[in-house]
Amino acid sequence: MGKKSILILGAGRSSSALISYLLEKANNGNWHVTVGDFFEQAAKDRVGSSGNGTAIRFNIEEEEASAQAIQAADIVISLLPAAFHPRVAKLCLYHKKHLFTASYISDEMKSFHEEAKQKDLLFMNECGLDPGIDHMTAMEVMDRIRDEGGKMISFESFAGGLIAPTTDPSNPWRYKFTWNPRNIVIAGQGTAKFIQEGQYKFIPYQQLFQRTTYVHIPGYGDFEGYANRDSLKYISNYKLDDVKTMLRGTLRNKGFCSAWNILGQLGCTDDSYPMERVDQMTHREFLNTFLPYDKVMMLEDKLMNRFKLDQDGPEMERLRWSGLFEREPIGLNSGTPAQVLEHILNKKWKLEPTDKDMVVMWHRFIYSMKGETREIQSHLVALGDDSIQTAMAKGVGLPLAIGTRLFIEGKIKDRGVAMPLSKEVYRPILDELRHFGISMQERNVVDEQA
Amino acid sequence: MGKKSILILGAGRSSSALISYLLEKANNGNWHVTVGDFFEQAAKDRVGSSGNGTAIRFNIEEEEASAQAIQAADIVISLLPAAFHPRVAKLCLYHKKHLFTASYISDEMKSFHEEAKQKDLLFMNECGLDPGIDHMTAMEVMDRIRDEGGKMISFESFAGGLIAPTTDPSNPWRYKFTWNPRNIVIAGQGTAKFIQEGQYKFIPYQQLFQRTTYVHIPGYGDFEGYANRDSLKYISNYKLDDVKTMLRGTLRNKGFCSAWNILGQLGCTDDSYPMERVDQMTHREFLNTFLPYDKVMMLEDKLMNRFKLDQDGPEMERLRWSGLFEREPIGLNSGTPAQVLEHILNKKWKLEPTDKDMVVMWHRFIYSMKGETREIQSHLVALGDDSIQTAMAKGVGLPLAIGTRLFIEGKIKDRGVAMPLSKEVYRPILDELRHFGISMQERNVVDEQA
Repeated sequence: MGKKSILILGAGRSSSALISYLLEKANNGNWHVTVGDFFEQAAKDRVGSSGNGTAIRFNIEEEEASAQAIQAADIVISLLPAAFHPRVAKLCLYHKKHLFTASYISDEMKSFHEEAKQKDLLFMNECGLDPGIDHMTAMEVMDRIRDEGGKMISFESFAGGLIAPTTDPSNPWRYKFTWNPRNIVIAGQGTAKFIQEGQYKFIPYQQLFQRTTYVHIPGYGDFEGYANRDSLKYISNYKLDDVKTMLRGTLRNKGFCSAWNILGQLGCTDDSYPMERVDQMTHREFLNTFLPYDKVMMLEDKLMNRFKLDQDGPEMERLRWSGLFEREPIGLNSGTPAQVLEHILNKKWKLEPTDKDMVVMWHRFIYSMKGETREIQSHLVALGDDSIQTAMAKGVGLPLAIGTRLFIEGKIKDRGVAMPLSKEVYRPILDELRHFGISMQERNVVDEQA
Repeated sequence: MGKKSILILGAGRSSSALISYLLEKANNGNWHVTVGDFFEQAAKDRVGSSGNGTAIRFNIEEEEASAQAIQAADIVISLLPAAFHPRVAKLCLYHKKHLFTASYISDEMKSFHEEAKQKDLLFMNECGLDPGIDHMTAMEVMDRIRDEGGKMISFESFAGGLIAPTTDPSNPWRYKFTWNPRNIVIAGQGTAKFIQEGQYKFIPYQQLFQRTTYVHIPGYGDFEGYANRDSLKYISNYKLDDVKTMLRGTLRNKGFCSAWNILGQLGCTDDSYPMERVDQMTHREFLNTFLPYDKVMMLEDKLMNRFKLDQDGPEMERLRWSGLFEREPIGLNSGTPAQVLEHILNKKWKLEPTDKDMVVMWHRFIYSMKGETREIQSHLVALGDDSIQTAMAKGVGLPLAIGTRLFIEGKIKDRGVAMPLSKEVYRPILDELRHFGISMQERNVVDEQA
């Protein structure tokens, strides 16, 4: 193979570890890295003084320049918002380039499978943290169980991007914006679908944060998970056709969901219409917009009354801490409820330079082996170094980077639209992630009542 | 004016009174009525043996035939589903025909205003029952208040299509499908917007059926109303720019909303995805799909537990009466939750031939006059004759029919995209509706505590 050219689209929040890795390994691997971003300076900052990289301005809306940049590459890694992936994929198909993303495979992306395969191209998706490391660490355990003659009965998996225990100790949410704030505010909208004890289950948004799963992680305490999108499609991807329970979800610190539920129930996370008079509104008036008019009751009383909350209970504490009861001007001219809420929350949830984030992932496998029902729980906890080299950026970027390296070295034979589910892909990626301190701890769980 | 040709599109549920009126008055008025429906027989049934009408097959998907039918008319009345109105309107613009509908003015319909006006065409919309009679009866009172020197402070209005007290006495919902069942099941999705005591208020779907307004109608008992879509846009339409409260909504019998709320909260009214295994499912299993898995609890117990319901309370009584706890096969091969729910409800909510429906409308006007704050409440109750000549069909069809007659007689000067808000339109329509037994009862309300 000659010297390869890698084009990375997007130099934002989750690109740091990806770009560092590929620049560092370029001398061994014989490739060159081009980083493109709408803000050329962001791309330059990431490339720094490395002789193995070039920064360019890249705007997917500029068709000709986008086509040229992609034509000049061998492999494209897209960190753009997922909605732009199909455009990138079409250019990759046309110019016969391979594509890597850390995003969920959309129906449109899926539709490119045959053509990509025919052209001997790999479109590797869901190769980040979640989706990504969750798939790989789950397949590793389940393949082993099956290789040993076991049969999967139930699989549950939760992951979340939180903050380190030492960061912002007075923050009762134990949460900050460690990735795209907009996606965090609107998370869970739509219907979650999964299967539990053989029964299909659907949870609409309005029930989502009330139907959580309790998760305990030894040494890290108590968490809670809510169901995530469509778990059903992973039944066949994971080869779990006879499984009784299949549930994937999002992990939060205990207490997060019941407080967030209030905001969701009120309609504060609605992103479908622009609000009136945002420019003249305080935080308090924003919240009051979603509560009934009352001649005498205060905002706090209306809220406690409607949701049966205690004055000093955990939900009111979180809402109060976030400044939602303050007579402070919002400071936006216009916006949807979700945009206004993001703006208010960001005043307290913005990651400070010395803040450390924390990624937590947890799986539970129940299976039968030799006539017995057995359970394995595994977990991963990774801390960020600071607000740039976040655990989130490492978790998303390193699997993409390692996957790209393996592919250039000819070690991945998959073609078409793929996920990192085969041993040849996940084994070397997980092996190398261990060197970066990213690995699962596994334990056999014995029924505690026995 | 020569002999005019009226084309009525749609011979469904709400067309009977409209078609009867226009056929009957045709001899005096010198017009001919063509009724077009996808099912030609439905159109033929409506025209019957009248010499003033012709039935044709009409399918809006067949472009050439649709254009021909519209070209042959002078005035088009569209009872098609609202989503098709823009297509009809474009053909009317092209062939220079007037258009009447009973539907809300969509943004797309609104965009035709200038062109229609320029071509001297009238596109009269919201000229049915609700929207329609509600606008006209509200404007009649408010114009009078303003003419007498009063100033509006607050306007609230609720209307609903219910069933007559004598119909199905054991039905605890006091409700049946008297118009498009699909629209009834998905009613309220989106966000309701209104203004109350000078505060903007937004209610998301998940709160809608919990935030009802109590309405008492003398002689008819207790009702409840929930907010309907966007009330804000009627502030300017009604010339109520300084009003403190503006709320339009949907009326139901007392107890309906708290039971319907359960179905909405669970996600049973979601129309956005197809369910799994509908063909193998019972009513009971359908409901259970939206409740958490539990090893020991029965469906009823899970439901009572989650929503804090009493075994014999009004919500459980309604759900039980509707057969939702039965082990009866659904009898559909596939469907969204909303489609499945409609199918199950229709087993008990289908209008029987002798059933009578009942339309109820209620307005409350608060205004200042001569330094005093005064209140008027008005209401209208109309009964159907049977399951064909429903109150709903009369309420929707007669204003359209009378409006069309007035227009042909040259008595309506409005042009462009319009609503029946001017005196020249609403006065003669309301006068004539009185002969059909459709009129508001008005009373001055004195503060009962005074």
